[in-house]
Amino acid sequence: MKQADVVVVGGSAAGPVTVMTAKRHYPDKSVLEIRKEQPERVMVPCGIPYIFGTVGSTNKNVIGDSVITSNGGELMIDEVTEIDRAAKTVTTANGEKIGYDRLVLATGSNPVSPPIPGKELENVFFVRKDAGYIDDMLKKLSSVKDIVVIGGGFIGIEMADEIRKMGGKNITIVEMLPQCLQLALDEDQCSEAEKKLAERGIKVLAGTTAKSITGEGKVSGIELSDGQILKADAVVIGIGAVPNTDLAKKAGLEIGPMRGIQVDEYMRTVTDKNIFAVGDCAEKFSFFTRKPSGLRLASIATIEARIAGANLFQLKRKNVGAIGVFATIIGDDCFSVVGLTERAARDAGYDIVTGEWTAPDKHPGSMPGTKQEKIKLVVEKKTGKILGGEIVGGRTSAEVANIMSAFISNQMTVDQVAIFQMGTHPALTGSPIVYQIVNAAEVALTKMR
Amino acid sequence: MKQADVVVVGGSAAGPVTVMTAKRHYPDKSVLEIRKEQPERVMVPCGIPYIFGTVGSTNKNVIGDSVITSNGGELMIDEVTEIDRAAKTVTTANGEKIGYDRLVLATGSNPVSPPIPGKELENVFFVRKDAGYIDDMLKKLSSVKDIVVIGGGFIGIEMADEIRKMGGKNITIVEMLPQCLQLALDEDQCSEAEKKLAERGIKVLAGTTAKSITGEGKVSGIELSDGQILKADAVVIGIGAVPNTDLAKKAGLEIGPMRGIQVDEYMRTVTDKNIFAVGDCAEKFSFFTRKPSGLRLASIATIEARIAGANLFQLKRKNVGAIGVFATIIGDDCFSVVGLTERAARDAGYDIVTGEWTAPDKHPGSMPGTKQEKIKLVVEKKTGKILGGEIVGGRTSAEVANIMSAFISNQMTVDQVAIFQMGTHPALTGSPIVYQIVNAAEVALTKMR
Repeated sequence: MKQADVVVVGGSAAGPVTVMTAKRHYPDKSVLEIRKEQPERVMVPCGIPYIFGTVGSTNKNVIGDSVITSNGGELMIDEVTEIDRAAKTVTTANGEKIGYDRLVLATGSNPVSPPIPGKELENVFFVRKDAGYIDDMLKKLSSVKDIVVIGGGFIGIEMADEIRKMGGKNITIVEMLPQCLQLALDEDQCSEAEKKLAERGIKVLAGTTAKSITGEGKVSGIELSDGQILKADAVVIGIGAVPNTDLAKKAGLEIGPMRGIQVDEYMRTVTDKNIFAVGDCAEKFSFFTRKPSGLRLASIATIEARIAGANLFQLKRKNVGAIGVFATIIGDDCFSVVGLTERAARDAGYDIVTGEWTAPDKHPGSMPGTKQEKIKLVVEKKTGKILGGEIVGGRTSAEVANIMSAFISNQMTVDQVAIFQMGTHPALTGSPIVYQIVNAAEVALTKMR
Repeated sequence: MKQADVVVVGGSAAGPVTVMTAKRHYPDKSVLEIRKEQPERVMVPCGIPYIFGTVGSTNKNVIGDSVITSNGGELMIDEVTEIDRAAKTVTTANGEKIGYDRLVLATGSNPVSPPIPGKELENVFFVRKDAGYIDDMLKKLSSVKDIVVIGGGFIGIEMADEIRKMGGKNITIVEMLPQCLQLALDEDQCSEAEKKLAERGIKVLAGTTAKSITGEGKVSGIELSDGQILKADAVVIGIGAVPNTDLAKKAGLEIGPMRGIQVDEYMRTVTDKNIFAVGDCAEKFSFFTRKPSGLRLASIATIEARIAGANLFQLKRKNVGAIGVFATIIGDDCFSVVGLTERAARDAGYDIVTGEWTAPDKHPGSMPGTKQEKIKLVVEKKTGKILGGEIVGGRTSAEVANIMSAFISNQMTVDQVAIFQMGTHPALTGSPIVYQIVNAAEVALTKMR
């Protein structure tokens, strides 16, 4: 029987990072990743929408296996079908049995499949992390005209805008909530995003749902809950992901309230201390409220993998809960969000103030390519602590969001942020005089007195 | 006699930010800025090199006076020539006398004028924050061919590369130290910067100095210390700045070891608690060693102004010392540095390790416009604390440097940085799997064991 000190199940973001981290912290341990996807065929998960427009092919959207092999990990292409916790072995679809000392489940998530009649019709697609499926989807979408995207979250709008780049498409997004991106951004940012989508010729129908998908064999239309009928040659459903916990359930591991494998702050499953779970398949909690969180992001998956990988044989790192840092781009306009939105903070019971500031993202504003960068900080009134931030701006916005994440991680107050030691450069950042984060902090401060 | 609660002397970065901050924290106090520059004629200091190439005119490189007026400050165009500390008044060149309750000196710096014979010749220029002077310099440089830039620091290489953009120039940088940018970057980064300059047709003569500037009336050449003679139609001297403390000295205020006005951690002058000093004219100390620091940056000036402005009538904020965050760009290649370089850390007596990591700044690497982002972290071996970082990469590098500055401000260790909750996006950041800062931190950790 084959034996590895560490067996990692799953090949998307969390899997290879667990391998890399395990080898960095325990170089003498053998680490084996077992996954279904063929060599050099694991999709970069967040890159999937970009296959349809910007990069053009699944072959250009691959997580290289060198992440595993160059770090001294071993790779086996197979599917783990069973865990024997007492014997500390896993069994694969090919009938292999492998012994482990520590097991890490990184089995990911599957797209949510809503109970809409007609979803089984031809040309109805989900956003699956499966290269073969995406190849087929790419081919089929390229030959159709009227496309309806169900779901106006990040994945839905990215899919819509990238498919648009194929040219000659008529694209409609159907969103259940009153606005696109409403779970991630506040109302004003959502409105800006919707405006950008409209400018690019993408129709948004918000506040309505798909009641049924119609067609004979192949999709031909969608009937909405408000009675509208849309013509559709293809439908893309992107309304979220649900943890893939089949293997964990079969092994008797406890499942949490958000349907993920229940883990402790070291990323060990609460049921079995020799088994860890990381990424979309693992239960998460909020950095702010410590309540269960539905956030599922590749970035969080890799952070959990860095915690689990370091903790395999000695507890070194604690998970402090997910802050949640998102970004997306529509054309040249970027939308980023960190932590709690104004709405989420109020819903969680915080008494808040906001600080808002807009300034050019280069300086002077006559520098070529300058865009306005608009920042909102969400601040707990009592303590001055930063709870969240939103940025609408240019291509540096996502790293600016990461600056905010660093502030939040360190529980910084707006008074500390107001004297943050930022560096600036004419071609690369806003002016030090009107630098956005520090000025937003000063504005928030004026509202706290 | 005119009277203001707060009088701010000086109009570059620190002046208007002091006004803005004072009005935010003490809205009922009257705040008057007195400066020499005409309305809408204060130059964005870091923008000055870009006048010569990218933006093309001093009118496009202005700090708008609305920073003062829209925040309720008042502006007087005049020059303060004397301070009467006992009477708490200032006198101006136009003979006005203005009473103050608090006085803030933001008198800036002047270019270092080295003792080189011939520096008074026509077409020998300094990088002055003076719109009229720059207008003249722009006109004269546009009609000459052979230009020598003395000084290979940030300002020198930015001037050289922007003047190059005028076209048809033959540009040589003369740098005393063995490499350009050597005071700011480590050897490997300096070599990369020199390579980029060479690719753009800019000659670098390092390890030599200008012995004399020759010419009859107008400059015609430079003689170097190694005996080389360079033809020169114009010379630009950019070798640093020296605090402008004439007014302070005249008023009997103590001057520090780095030639700045000596201040306490609240930015009050040590001599007179009613007088503050901020920006290039003020003495600085290092965040790391607490020793006097020669850093002079517009960003630091604004941070000091935010400290002083808040402290005018109640001590609210402390200066913790300058971290120092720089960035520059040569073509599309950006060079950023935060805190201590490897060399500076060793010189300061730290036992260090470094963590290096290079990965594409977008993901997958097939995304258009992807550049490699190369990061080095400088880490104190004993504590794991981040002391500095260097980044060579694309246009997000400066904000990435700011993420590092946030880490350093919070005295984070590499173990904390390794599980930093960054957000990622295909078009905007590196992949979460190989995200540069966290992986550089993990690499540093492997060297600490």
